[in-house]
Parts: sequence; structure tokens; C-alpha cells
Amino acid sequence: MAFTPAPIIYAIEPFGGSIRDHNPNLPLVYADDAAVTRGDGIFETLLVRGGELSNFDRHFERFYASAQLLDLPLPIKADWQRASNQAVQVWLEQWANAGAEPIDGALKWTLTRGRESTQIPSAWLSVHTISPTQLHQREHGVAVMTSPKGYHIDQHAQTPWLTVGAKTLNYAATMAALRWAKTHGFDDVLYTDGDTVLEGATSTLISVKGTKIRTPLGNGQLLTGTTQQALFEHASSLGWRCKQKDLTLEDLFRADSVWLISSVRIAARITSIDGTKLPTPENESEIRELIEQSLKVKSLANDAAKLS
Amino acid sequence: MAFTPAPIIYAIEPFGGSIRDHNPNLPLVYADDAAVTRGDGIFETLLVRGGELSNFDRHFERFYASAQLLDLPLPIKADWQRASNQAVQVWLEQWANAGAEPIDGALKWTLTRGRESTQIPSAWLSVHTISPTQLHQREHGVAVMTSPKGYHIDQHAQTPWLTVGAKTLNYAATMAALRWAKTHGFDDVLYTDGDTVLEGATSTLISVKGTKIRTPLGNGQLLTGTTQQALFEHASSLGWRCKQKDLTLEDLFRADSVWLISSVRIAARITSIDGTKLPTPENESEIRELIEQSLKVKSLANDAAKLS
Repeated sequence: MAFTPAPIIYAIEPFGGSIRDHNPNLPLVYADDAAVTRGDGIFETLLVRGGELSNFDRHFERFYASAQLLDLPLPIKADWQRASNQAVQVWLEQWANAGAEPIDGALKWTLTRGRESTQIPSAWLSVHTISPTQLHQREHGVAVMTSPKGYHIDQHAQTPWLTVGAKTLNYAATMAALRWAKTHGFDDVLYTDGDTVLEGATSTLISVKGTKIRTPLGNGQLLTGTTQQALFEHASSLGWRCKQKDLTLEDLFRADSVWLISSVRIAARITSIDGTKLPTPENESEIRELIEQSLKVKSLANDAAKLS
Repeated sequence: MAFTPAPIIYAIEPFGGSIRDHNPNLPLVYADDAAVTRGDGIFETLLVRGGELSNFDRHFERFYASAQLLDLPLPIKADWQRASNQAVQVWLEQWANAGAEPIDGALKWTLTRGRESTQIPSAWLSVHTISPTQLHQREHGVAVMTSPKGYHIDQHAQTPWLTVGAKTLNYAATMAALRWAKTHGFDDVLYTDGDTVLEGATSTLISVKGTKIRTPLGNGQLLTGTTQQALFEHASSLGWRCKQKDLTLEDLFRADSVWLISSVRIAARITSIDGTKLPTPENESEIRELIEQSLKVKSLANDAAKLS
């Protein structure tokens, strides 16, 4: 890659107000911020493709729901929209000034409980390029290892404060699982619960067979996937039969193709599970196109999310 | 409180090298640091009492073990010791310059996986005053609500990367439980598993009856408490019978006194459980003294941890 744009950071006032351009070469977060001391915050990562912010509404919906679950100040849509649009604009200008065609970027929102000393929440967004690994996995797929999560959420416990469904900053266990997988020659982790398959480490699982697209139900333990939601809406409108349904490893081996989908990597086909190869499906590029198209359709359908 | 010293921050080179005084009024952490993006790091909090760092060796042992579990660079004891001693020195000077008697402080070590863009781990320590709430709870005890954790670690799952036992930055669920407790008129949470009691939200449970001191076994799900370790060593040497043993709520109601112990708050007596008052024991001050003394003894026994 010849040109790498500088990362962009905008600090956002959490209760509404100014948006401040922050030099990415300077520290942003105070040592007593709850994000640093307790992982006490939420985030969303959006795909920036050309001038478009992909799937804005669904990401904002989940961001808002995460804030509610964690009792953080509710994000103001107009502010995050405005800051995101400005950042994408600057992003595009960097590419234009370099005379280069923009590759995909990732735009990340973060909202934390803020500094202990001020009790004011911290909020910012950042834009940076997608990693070469992610680009490679889009094209060549991923070899996954299966693993139980190693813990169970108790469905019937009286713990109303548990933040299942919130996209929090607590990813240390996930990162540890991914490091372990990479050390052992795998690209990603596919979480299982007994015979049932659940999700990727940072992605949603889907399987395709004929005109059926399936994603695990997950018994309330899974984070709702914004990409999966967009795909199901788009694919259904084209006649695909989309359904949430418990899936087993056997189901995956019998499918035409199996994918890990997420906002930025978009779609990585699973090429092997625990060392057993999955055949290359005939319709690989059709499925990939379907998934990519679903993100685009969502953006185009939503005027507010478009770069003005 | 008439005088509040300024917080102290020292940035520490994770692979050895310089220690840098950092202005606490400036941000320290970059937006792409793994502590901020994933809660991917570890910490320890030590009590600073007068010129003493309490229980240094046990904290460093756990810090080192946490780093091993998370595959972070192993902290260099001499560096953390030197930085900690320097910070305590500056802390004491602030009090001396103000002509005030120093109240207890908290010294916190943090080690993170570092910035995505540089892949260099981040490390620092900070010193600040203890919160008025912590001081109040030391004196007046805590009213606790019991609750299941809401999740179970699977003991037999093949997940060697799970960081049970590491003191990571992933405390969002704990913080949510504490917020919920406070909204409902409680001071703290006592985690239970069925009939068995486990630990406080950020502390170790002990019960005292006659000359017996008990702390839950916890079936490998609990973080080892540095204060509990120090207490057991010290109390045993004085003839108390100390033991890790499964405890029920009934056991707690039958005890002479029940305590949540931790590094900085030290010992908060549980005054009620789910609204049921526990009687004030006759030996409350004796037990408190025993716990405080165990921290002091440990410091005095360990020359290296003393401020030189």
C-alpha cells in the first residue's frame, strides 16, 4: 500500500456541544478514566467505504442500547452523525490530496464513564485504515478452531445489571482466545456450547445452504450482529430464506458455505474447522457480493447516514 | 479534609529503563491503547500508609502472575519498586510542605498491551488519596446485598487462555453490580453461588468466630486476596486458626463478625446482609487492629518494600 492516511480523532462532548479535532500523535485519555481503570465504556466500529459510513443506523441503535444498559449518558445522534461525517470528509480529503483511491477504513465510536476526578464521561471517534490481516482474510478466508467460551451466563440469575448485549470495552478474554488461536496456527475462534455453535471471537456466524441463510439463536448469549441484521433484511428482500436457528458443527459441515461476518472485515469464509477443510463453494463470490451489497443498500436507503 | 495532595503519575518503560514524571493534568493514554480499546491490561492497587507501601511483595507477585497469564511483558521488580518508592517520597513531601499529617493513599500499577500502532506495552503508576466513602466504610462498615455473579466459569472447559486469577482491567460488570447496589440502598455486593458465599465486588470475605478465621474456598473462581494472605500469615502466628473453607450465608449469620477486606479500604465490617442486621461484635476493634497490623508487619518484615 503506497499511501497510508494519518488517523483522525475527534473528541466529542458527551452531553452535546463542540467537536474537537485531536492530534492522534498526542495522548487522549487520562490515567483515571474509567475506560482505562475498569474497561467501563462502550464502542462501535463502522466501515468507511469511499464516502459512505456503512450501516450507520444499526450501529447507532446498538451504541444507544449499550449506553442504556451501562447507564451512560445517552449518545446524541445528531452529534455523532455530524462528527462522523466530518471525519469521513477529512479522511477522503487525505486520499484525494495524495491522489490515491481510498481503501476501506474503520470508524470507531467510544463512550466511557469518564474520569474519576471529574465524573464527566469521555467520548470520541477515530478513523484509521483496515489492517492488512483483515483485508487478507476477506479474500482468503479463515481457518478456525472451535472452543467453548469457558463460562456461562446464567439465564435465570437475578442480576439485572449484567450487560449482556452491550458492546463494552471488556475484551481481554476474547483477545486471549485469539492470541492462543494464532499461536496454534488458526486465524480465528469459533465459540461452541456443547454441540451448538455460537459465534466468532468478534463476528457473527452464518451458514448458507441452497437458498437458506442461517445464524445461531444463541439463547440470548450473543451480541446482536449489525452486519447479520443488514444481510438478513437485504437477502430476504431478494428471496433468500433467512432464519435464526440453533446450529451444530454437523450443520456447518453440511452447508454450502460458512462465514464469519462483521462490520469491518465484512465477510471471511471459514475454510477449515479444527483442521478439517470445508470445500470451496461454487457461489462464493455471489454470497460475498450479497453481504457487501446489504451494507451498501442500508447506507443508500438511509439519507441521514450519507455524507452530505 | 484541609489538604489534598496532587495526584502523582510516573510512566514506566515496560522493558526496563527510564521512569518519567507525568503531569496528572495531561492525558496519558493514546486512543489506540489496548487498555482503552479492549480493557487488555492488568493492575494492582497498594495502600500507602505514611511512608510505607503495604504488602508490596504479595502485590508484585500477583501483578507478575497476571502478566504471565495475559502474556504481557513480565514486570521488572526493581523498576516498579524504584518508581513506587520515588512516588511515595514525592507524596510525603507534598504533605510535609503543606504541614499536614498524611492520610492513607492508594498507589496503583497499570500494565497494558499498549498501542496498536506501536505494539509497545504501556506501563505507569499513580498515587492519589483514598475516597471519603472508603474512609467512611472502614469506620462504619457496609450494608451488603447478596447476588449470584450471573455467570459461571466452566472448570473443565479446554480454555487454557482464560485469565481467571489475573487482575485485568475488565471490571465493567462489577461496576454495574455496585451501581445497582448503591441505587437500592446498599454499600456493596456479596457474591453468592447457590447457598455458598464467595467474595465482595472488589474484596475478599472473611468471617471470625471465636479464634477461627475463615475465607471461602471459592472453587478456583476467586481472585486471591493479598490482604487475606497477609492476615492469615500474621493471625496464624498469633494463634488464630485460619482456614479456607466453603461458607454459607447461615455460617455468616452465626459468626461473631464478618468482613470485606481489601488493600485500600482494608477492612469494612458487614453490618447487614440483604437488610438483616448483624450484631456488633465485642471484639470489633481487636479484629480491625489484627487486620491493620498484618499489613504493617508484612511491610516491616520486608526491607525491600520499605521506603529507603
